[in-house]
Amino acid sequence: MTRGHLGGPSRRGQVPGFEVMEVVARVAQLRAEGHDVVSLCVGEPLAGAPAPVRQAMARAMDGADLGYSASLGMMPLREKLAEHYGARYGLAVDASRVAITTGSSGAFLLAFLSCFDAGDRVALARPGYPAYANILRSLDLQVVELDVTVPDETGRVTYQLTTQMLDAVQEQAPLAGLVVASPANPTGTMLTADEMESLAAWCREHGVRLVSDEIYHGITADGTMGECAWRHDTSALVVSSFSKYWGMTGWRLGWLLMPEDLQTSIDALSSNLALCAPVPAQLAALEAFGDDVHSWARAAVRQYDVARDVVQRTAHDLGWELAPANGAFYVYADISSSLRPSEDSRAWCTSLLEEARVAITPGWDFDRVHGGSTVRLSLAVGPEQVAEAMTRLRSWLAGR
Amino acid sequence: MTRGHLGGPSRRGQVPGFEVMEVVARVAQLRAEGHDVVSLCVGEPLAGAPAPVRQAMARAMDGADLGYSASLGMMPLREKLAEHYGARYGLAVDASRVAITTGSSGAFLLAFLSCFDAGDRVALARPGYPAYANILRSLDLQVVELDVTVPDETGRVTYQLTTQMLDAVQEQAPLAGLVVASPANPTGTMLTADEMESLAAWCREHGVRLVSDEIYHGITADGTMGECAWRHDTSALVVSSFSKYWGMTGWRLGWLLMPEDLQTSIDALSSNLALCAPVPAQLAALEAFGDDVHSWARAAVRQYDVARDVVQRTAHDLGWELAPANGAFYVYADISSSLRPSEDSRAWCTSLLEEARVAITPGWDFDRVHGGSTVRLSLAVGPEQVAEAMTRLRSWLAGR
Repeated sequence: MTRGHLGGPSRRGQVPGFEVMEVVARVAQLRAEGHDVVSLCVGEPLAGAPAPVRQAMARAMDGADLGYSASLGMMPLREKLAEHYGARYGLAVDASRVAITTGSSGAFLLAFLSCFDAGDRVALARPGYPAYANILRSLDLQVVELDVTVPDETGRVTYQLTTQMLDAVQEQAPLAGLVVASPANPTGTMLTADEMESLAAWCREHGVRLVSDEIYHGITADGTMGECAWRHDTSALVVSSFSKYWGMTGWRLGWLLMPEDLQTSIDALSSNLALCAPVPAQLAALEAFGDDVHSWARAAVRQYDVARDVVQRTAHDLGWELAPANGAFYVYADISSSLRPSEDSRAWCTSLLEEARVAITPGWDFDRVHGGSTVRLSLAVGPEQVAEAMTRLRSWLAGR
Repeated sequence: MTRGHLGGPSRRGQVPGFEVMEVVARVAQLRAEGHDVVSLCVGEPLAGAPAPVRQAMARAMDGADLGYSASLGMMPLREKLAEHYGARYGLAVDASRVAITTGSSGAFLLAFLSCFDAGDRVALARPGYPAYANILRSLDLQVVELDVTVPDETGRVTYQLTTQMLDAVQEQAPLAGLVVASPANPTGTMLTADEMESLAAWCREHGVRLVSDEIYHGITADGTMGECAWRHDTSALVVSSFSKYWGMTGWRLGWLLMPEDLQTSIDALSSNLALCAPVPAQLAALEAFGDDVHSWARAAVRQYDVARDVVQRTAHDLGWELAPANGAFYVYADISSSLRPSEDSRAWCTSLLEEARVAITPGWDFDRVHGGSTVRLSLAVGPEQVAEAMTRLRSWLAGR
């Protein structure tokens, strides 16, 4: 008897999980034991989905057709999203170029399979959302992580990719793709129009496919939606989602703006790998575009702004180095000034949770090299809980 | 300027779509023009989801937490499914071994990534559900299609894989995996307990990972759920779904029974590639296990039995060769006796649709070698429409 392909997962199946999940599990355990924990771990808006969307979902349960949609989604929702780009970005997007996906997760899978073959090199920023690299590696792609915390020639840390960084790796071996995120998780930093343009131009010049993660669009301190890659180049793939601005995390609904040359491929991949995005959520999302919903969403964004100020003040007082967050609902901090000698962020976060009942995420999920001195604080729980967490944090550190 | 990785999809991204979608699109067009079309194309139960599930979904919209669930799903639903295997199969399944997935599509993706590395050989039956091969190929796996319409030494056509077929390909190069489906799409054939046992034993002996597609379980002529691979070997992966027996196709909710050695891998893959299955649907599916729901589902199954009889009688009269369907809601037929010289199933189906307004699916989606002489008829629309389709078909053929 041979074990052969039994007795453990494939090599590609050995991707790491998210370390934050261990923190989340410990928070749940502590709360179950009656402890009052403030958690700044999760990337989920507290309020959940807007009322008109929930109401539409409830109505759809009363007899609506909930069978498969077309693999690229219901045309009325694709049309709504095309209008959304017109109304909110001043961008003309044809509905045929919008693919409805199973969250941004589903969009990334379709994008990466459609664009890249095994062995292709894809660059992305470190720190960054860990699933990019993990999905890419599970699909046998080579991940080229670029450290965006290295100061440039002027001494500035960009926390975003620059063409200088890309030039350096392109010299080693040609890239096939580039993933950018703005606003970014975990840093909350945003690309300006000029920065997006220079990255898009660099990709065009080098025949590199640009994949732009825009799932935090709308969650910005300046009140804009954020910079869309399609303003610069429609050969890019834009990934977005109803999860963050609309607070529909568990609904698993996102979308993809598809370059024309990839439409047939993405349609066929979606048929085979997904069939379609969840239809009840597609029906409900038709109600996500009213002015009332946008007002509701902007009010939530304003709350993140208040919470961000609270964290930034605390961090300043503690001597932490911060990424210049102006979007998403995260603050990413180098907490070296608060670490004991040889203490790393994981141990520090554990002590903070066990002793002060405040949960924040160690940096290792986002940066496998420098994560030992960084943490991510999520503002998604709103300013009151964030303020309480900062009070506990200051008091805990003072008594350490 | 170089095109590089711009200007078209990757090689792996060039998977075929489903031919049936063209038929579905033409049906929609004809109906929009006012034509009365009977469609036996789609694999969707007409009735949709059971009332208690819809009601639970509507209730969940009134304040339930719809944030991300754990990546393997909500524990109460995993527990319900574990109980389901106890109650309906007499199988002891621990809830920790149940992963809730985004439809069976999501389950296949996790299963294949967790089990197989690029280049691995995976065997499956031809004819079969086309997405198996297409997903596998998009993940750089080698698909070994085995023709299950070749008569065995006794002259019997099995329409299911046998260990003899596996022995023959294993001699060429070792397999890493085997995909079986019972009841099968498109043939409606089922593996007996003995047949499943011999396939499971063969896999065990050769170190080959068995992936068992059980999404049509419960839809059987004999009133059983069908044969579960886990009755024979818990190192197999069982893929199942709420889509068919429960009629929840567009909801995108399925599950996976995970071998113990793959749990960590599947959890991490799910975190990274999906985050979690749709949470509203998970909450609603908690109400899918009552006796009332099973009675409702069995009543639908009885209707497929009636419809199957109608098709089998017609097929017999027309001299078609049929797969011995006793499960799922399909009949797969060799229609050679009704084809004109050099006419193939695609042309024949087009004429049938345009002239008699009956839509059925040409065999090419399921069998890229012999599909030119076969068709799949779906019984999911129920006996009345199936009977109307058969009447039109007979009359159309008589006048040809």
